[in-house]
Amino acid sequence: MKEFLTEDFLLETETAKKLYFEHAAKMPIIDYHCHLSPKDIADDRVFKTITEAWLEGDHYKWRAMRTNGVDEEFITGSKSDEEKFTKWAETVPDTLRNPLYHWTHLELQRYFDIPDILNSSTAEAIFNESSEKLKSTPFTCRGLLRKMNVEVVCSTDDPIDDLKYHKQLKSEEFEVKILPTFRPDKLYAVEDLNAYTAYLTNLGEVTGVKINSLDSLLETAQLRIDYFHEVGGRLSDHGLEQLYDVDYSKTNAAASFAKLMKGTTLTLAETHQFKMVVLVELSKMYHAKNWTQQYHLGAIRNNNSRMLRELGPDTGFDSIGDFSQVRALSKFLNELDTSDQLAKTILYNLNPADNEAMATMIGNFNDGSVAGKLQYGSAWWFLDQKDGMEKQINALSNMGLLSRFVGMLTDSRSFLSYPRHEYFRRILCNLIGKDVENGELPNDLQWLGQQVENICYYNAKNYFEFE
Amino acid sequence: MKEFLTEDFLLETETAKKLYFEHAAKMPIIDYHCHLSPKDIADDRVFKTITEAWLEGDHYKWRAMRTNGVDEEFITGSKSDEEKFTKWAETVPDTLRNPLYHWTHLELQRYFDIPDILNSSTAEAIFNESSEKLKSTPFTCRGLLRKMNVEVVCSTDDPIDDLKYHKQLKSEEFEVKILPTFRPDKLYAVEDLNAYTAYLTNLGEVTGVKINSLDSLLETAQLRIDYFHEVGGRLSDHGLEQLYDVDYSKTNAAASFAKLMKGTTLTLAETHQFKMVVLVELSKMYHAKNWTQQYHLGAIRNNNSRMLRELGPDTGFDSIGDFSQVRALSKFLNELDTSDQLAKTILYNLNPADNEAMATMIGNFNDGSVAGKLQYGSAWWFLDQKDGMEKQINALSNMGLLSRFVGMLTDSRSFLSYPRHEYFRRILCNLIGKDVENGELPNDLQWLGQQVENICYYNAKNYFEFE
Amino acid sequence: MKEFLTEDFLLETETAKKLYFEHAAKMPIIDYHCHLSPKDIADDRVFKTITEAWLEGDHYKWRAMRTNGVDEEFITGSKSDEEKFTKWAETVPDTLRNPLYHWTHLELQRYFDIPDILNSSTAEAIFNESSEKLKSTPFTCRGLLRKMNVEVVCSTDDPIDDLKYHKQLKSEEFEVKILPTFRPDKLYAVEDLNAYTAYLTNLGEVTGVKINSLDSLLETAQLRIDYFHEVGGRLSDHGLEQLYDVDYSKTNAAASFAKLMKGTTLTLAETHQFKMVVLVELSKMYHAKNWTQQYHLGAIRNNNSRMLRELGPDTGFDSIGDFSQVRALSKFLNELDTSDQLAKTILYNLNPADNEAMATMIGNFNDGSVAGKLQYGSAWWFLDQKDGMEKQINALSNMGLLSRFVGMLTDSRSFLSYPRHEYFRRILCNLIGKDVENGELPNDLQWLGQQVENICYYNAKNYFEFE
Repeated sequence: MKEFLTEDFLLETETAKKLYFEHAAKMPIIDYHCHLSPKDIADDRVFKTITEAWLEGDHYKWRAMRTNGVDEEFITGSKSDEEKFTKWAETVPDTLRNPLYHWTHLELQRYFDIPDILNSSTAEAIFNESSEKLKSTPFTCRGLLRKMNVEVVCSTDDPIDDLKYHKQLKSEEFEVKILPTFRPDKLYAVEDLNAYTAYLTNLGEVTGVKINSLDSLLETAQLRIDYFHEVGGRLSDHGLEQLYDVDYSKTNAAASFAKLMKGTTLTLAETHQFKMVVLVELSKMYHAKNWTQQYHLGAIRNNNSRMLRELGPDTGFDSIGDFSQVRALSKFLNELDTSDQLAKTILYNLNPADNEAMATMIGNFNDGSVAGKLQYGSAWWFLDQKDGMEKQINALSNMGLLSRFVGMLTDSRSFLSYPRHEYFRRILCNLIGKDVENGELPNDLQWLGQQVENICYYNAKNYFEFE
Repeated sequence: MKEFLTEDFLLETETAKKLYFEHAAKMPIIDYHCHLSPKDIADDRVFKTITEAWLEGDHYKWRAMRTNGVDEEFITGSKSDEEKFTKWAETVPDTLRNPLYHWTHLELQRYFDIPDILNSSTAEAIFNESSEKLKSTPFTCRGLLRKMNVEVVCSTDDPIDDLKYHKQLKSEEFEVKILPTFRPDKLYAVEDLNAYTAYLTNLGEVTGVKINSLDSLLETAQLRIDYFHEVGGRLSDHGLEQLYDVDYSKTNAAASFAKLMKGTTLTLAETHQFKMVVLVELSKMYHAKNWTQQYHLGAIRNNNSRMLRELGPDTGFDSIGDFSQVRALSKFLNELDTSDQLAKTILYNLNPADNEAMATMIGNFNDGSVAGKLQYGSAWWFLDQKDGMEKQINALSNMGLLSRFVGMLTDSRSFLSYPRHEYFRRILCNLIGKDVENGELPNDLQWLGQQVENICYYNAKNYFEFE
Repeated sequence: MKEFLTEDFLLETETAKKLYFEHAAKMPIIDYHCHLSPKDIADDRVFKTITEAWLEGDHYKWRAMRTNGVDEEFITGSKSDEEKFTKWAETVPDTLRNPLYHWTHLELQRYFDIPDILNSSTAEAIFNESSEKLKSTPFTCRGLLRKMNVEVVCSTDDPIDDLKYHKQLKSEEFEVKILPTFRPDKLYAVEDLNAYTAYLTNLGEVTGVKINSLDSLLETAQLRIDYFHEVGGRLSDHGLEQLYDVDYSKTNAAASFAKLMKGTTLTLAETHQFKMVVLVELSKMYHAKNWTQQYHLGAIRNNNSRMLRELGPDTGFDSIGDFSQVRALSKFLNELDTSDQLAKTILYNLNPADNEAMATMIGNFNDGSVAGKLQYGSAWWFLDQKDGMEKQINALSNMGLLSRFVGMLTDSRSFLSYPRHEYFRRILCNLIGKDVENGELPNDLQWLGQQVENICYYNAKNYFEFE
């Protein structure tokens, strides 16, 4: 019987322990995709309580509390930080076997040296101790990054963003690189015509370009990509239900854009075609810059329109879709590859039923030019737990080369999420360790240790080519 | 080496054994969804032979026998009970690793105290011993329920059903509650127009309502729901390939109904729209009664038209479909939620590729009003085996709150299926036990024992609010 | 700690070892589906180097090398055999956890008695030793088959093929039966009209039939099936993304064929209908001959059009599709079953998300006429690894009868792939062994040993009824 969450957590063999402690644990963190606030880092924000740091924007915890019968007033409502925390603490014992249970206690241990189990009877003491610590220097936003040995953070930013916090941090020579990621979903969000035209107006003002045609839209995109590049950005990211398996042409997309400018909503077919054209053109720009493009595919968002009205998007009402992915993805990647304009690419799927299809899709466009050019991305969102990670690692291992994997990212809005890297690393070492002790891999720890270090750190470092 | 099917069956750790024997095994059974015959219970039917009790309606066994090359005469044909049983006994050794192998021997042990392995050499003795026992008092239908500590049985009933057996059993104060479940699939089975109009004629007679419009159809539905409620029904159930992602309106559905009444078959689009309108309206009625609605999604039925002609439906020619589920489900649940008319809901999927999508869908509509309001239902039909249950439990654990799960049901036509609850409970305790001994959960048996009891019994008791 | 790839490789229990060594390992191999060259066998080809034997046509290895950043010149290009081998050797350590890693070392051990790990430092010695051995008698193509105890090989052949090598081998009484398999994909490949008409011209010449109508097309198909049968063929094979859920008639298909003959390309709907008609008619012919038909479903091929132009098909640019399979498959099988013209059938799926649906589909048409008439085929292509095999075996076990499974095939183009049968057998014995030692199966080794022998050999022998 192992005790809960000790040093050997998730490490079931001696080989796993060696791989983890002598290799994985020593690696710095390159968090190449997350949703941290650059402003919070620039301001070196101090959290007043653990509630602010932990519950302010964490829709995972919110969902769990709602499922547990907690009233919204205690979740996103007007209750005090202590009341909210108490409700969360009461919910924690009911999250057994959910990643929240592990994350919660890993975060209490790693950041706050609190070994206790959170529940209603420990709530008050833990609230006080952690909130107290958060007010001290090593627990500011910058302190929390330092504590976790983070080397690079890539935030997620709208093309319109002026990136002033990224620039401030660069000029201050903050030792953790805080780099922007180009997330242009709104550039082709034509479904809501009013919001779209308002967005284009803003974008026009920021760039000084009069956006009255598809060409001028793409011109502004290029300007912003140039700007992000200048500030150190080397990645883009797209959140999409799916790509579309439709025929499209720039001419037709230009006509659709003209239609939009006249205030006419596009048909569904025109919408899909327009999006594909913009995505193809953006992708060519990423390729020209030697960027890496990311596609997060398969979420069905804002399912609950009542709560969308009340709380807005990204509040815990998104889930896993069952959209067809393969044919459109093949067509899209092939079109870019044909003209040799396919950028380094990471594909993330939200429905684990797509794991194997995705893991084989990348092999169609790995052409020897860059090792691991196409990547099957880390287990994402709902899949960001032990089962999900194991399945992603196994699918990649079986269908491609695990050895070339750029590894883990937090995808988180919280400064307290960095133990997710540790979680991933332990799971990775455990899988390899089991294979070794079961006679399925040679017991050559130098070789395997290097592979582990590559997946935890060096692959990402070499792949993204940050400045 | 553990022996086959001993007391510790499926319990791999000491913690699992403690959780099972000190908690799970002590809980009564609430079988909130099954296909038992209320008449058999009311009549307290005595089975003449084990063949009657075991093979009369069990399409799982029939499929296995057909696959094993057994002639239909020995399955649903005219052979004697002893001949049929012999063929089944010959098939049993060829069902290794199929749940039938475990179910068969669990049922022999638990009901009949027969520890032997069933095969051709033991067939005769087992036939005689079990058939003999079935004729004695503790083995009548009521006796079999008592033996298994069943507290509630929810049968599955057509809206037309007069529920006289349920009422008889209530008036006799039979100690097991036998409650009806409203299964209105025929209310919107418009594809076969002749069968549909005949059904509506019957329904009209039962309710005294002249069904000549959508409104009158819904009026009769409401009358029957009221009646089921009066007799103790608190659940409905729907068997559907999928919901439909279509636009629909009550006005159009009313027009479609008028078209049907004129003897015109609906187009596919009209059919889907009509079904969605009826489903939405029924669902609102369930909500008003504080019922729980169940959706069994994803079976493709009656694949073999030759055998459908010869034997009718539900005879072993159904299988797992690969229909899209998510978008239509989201639309349906959201529409009901928007007007705050979403009833407590259990979603069951037959294709395990949909597990994770389903397990996340429920989170979109858990709003804190009722703990575990939306449920991701137990592994169903083909998935009702160790692998399938583990996957369902793991998906629910990872994506939602296992702690709020209302747990297992038999879904069976057989009075000998109750060990499936034991099977589920052992698997549940085993998963939790492994987590504890592997250091992934704290070794707090009071807490975990309570969680196990909740999942096995108390959650269902609190959730369904039977009288 | 077990050492890598020893005698007990993949066998985790004593029971597994007994089942493997006393039963599975003793069975001859019936390789009822592969892509070996009958010419190479007839010529008893001698490989000049290990590169020729290992890398000449192996798109699995090519994909891995491309993913690892190896230039195409070293893969399919003009570099020397030694240079190519060196690049492969350098890639091998980066294939950890991919089946290539196991296959590579199994093949080195089993064929060449080379126990070393292949990497850049062992490359030269292994190249020399294995290439030297390949030049000696026991390592010719026939020798390699003898060494692996192969009893039957079914190659994959176009209807036009004259089968002269099969006939030569039969007349020479080569002790391994080399039998043809009818693979008529080109009979209905109407998308490329020029290629199609050229193909029909060839086919007309071979058969002496003037192909100017659907009837004459089917007549030639019948002639070629008769011919394949005469040479010993008892199987057909079809590679399809999916079957089509469309209405079709022979009359319409005849009209479509007339359209094709006038040089007009078919619409997508006509194409799907035409294919279904030809597939149905072929299937009836298979049934009349008591053949077994195979359907390999779900690959998305030639995703990379640049590489298709440069290297042609089957060069490593295919992957897993996410096509709907169930409804069309049900319709197709049912249509054949209705007139009792459904041949013995094996269904293979490439997307593991379809495993359970496929495993249940077969049960709809197992009618007792032949034990295991409908088969859920072995894990295929990307799934041909430990995880994939375990999932296929588990799905089949849970949803059908593992005991009736016709087992493993290589599906390979390489004479060095026969250890894949050993790999499968070890995995099978390991799964059963674990169940026994875990108390989930009785410890009756006579019964289980017989089951293992059946799955490894006797089921296939009885099922295919080769001459």
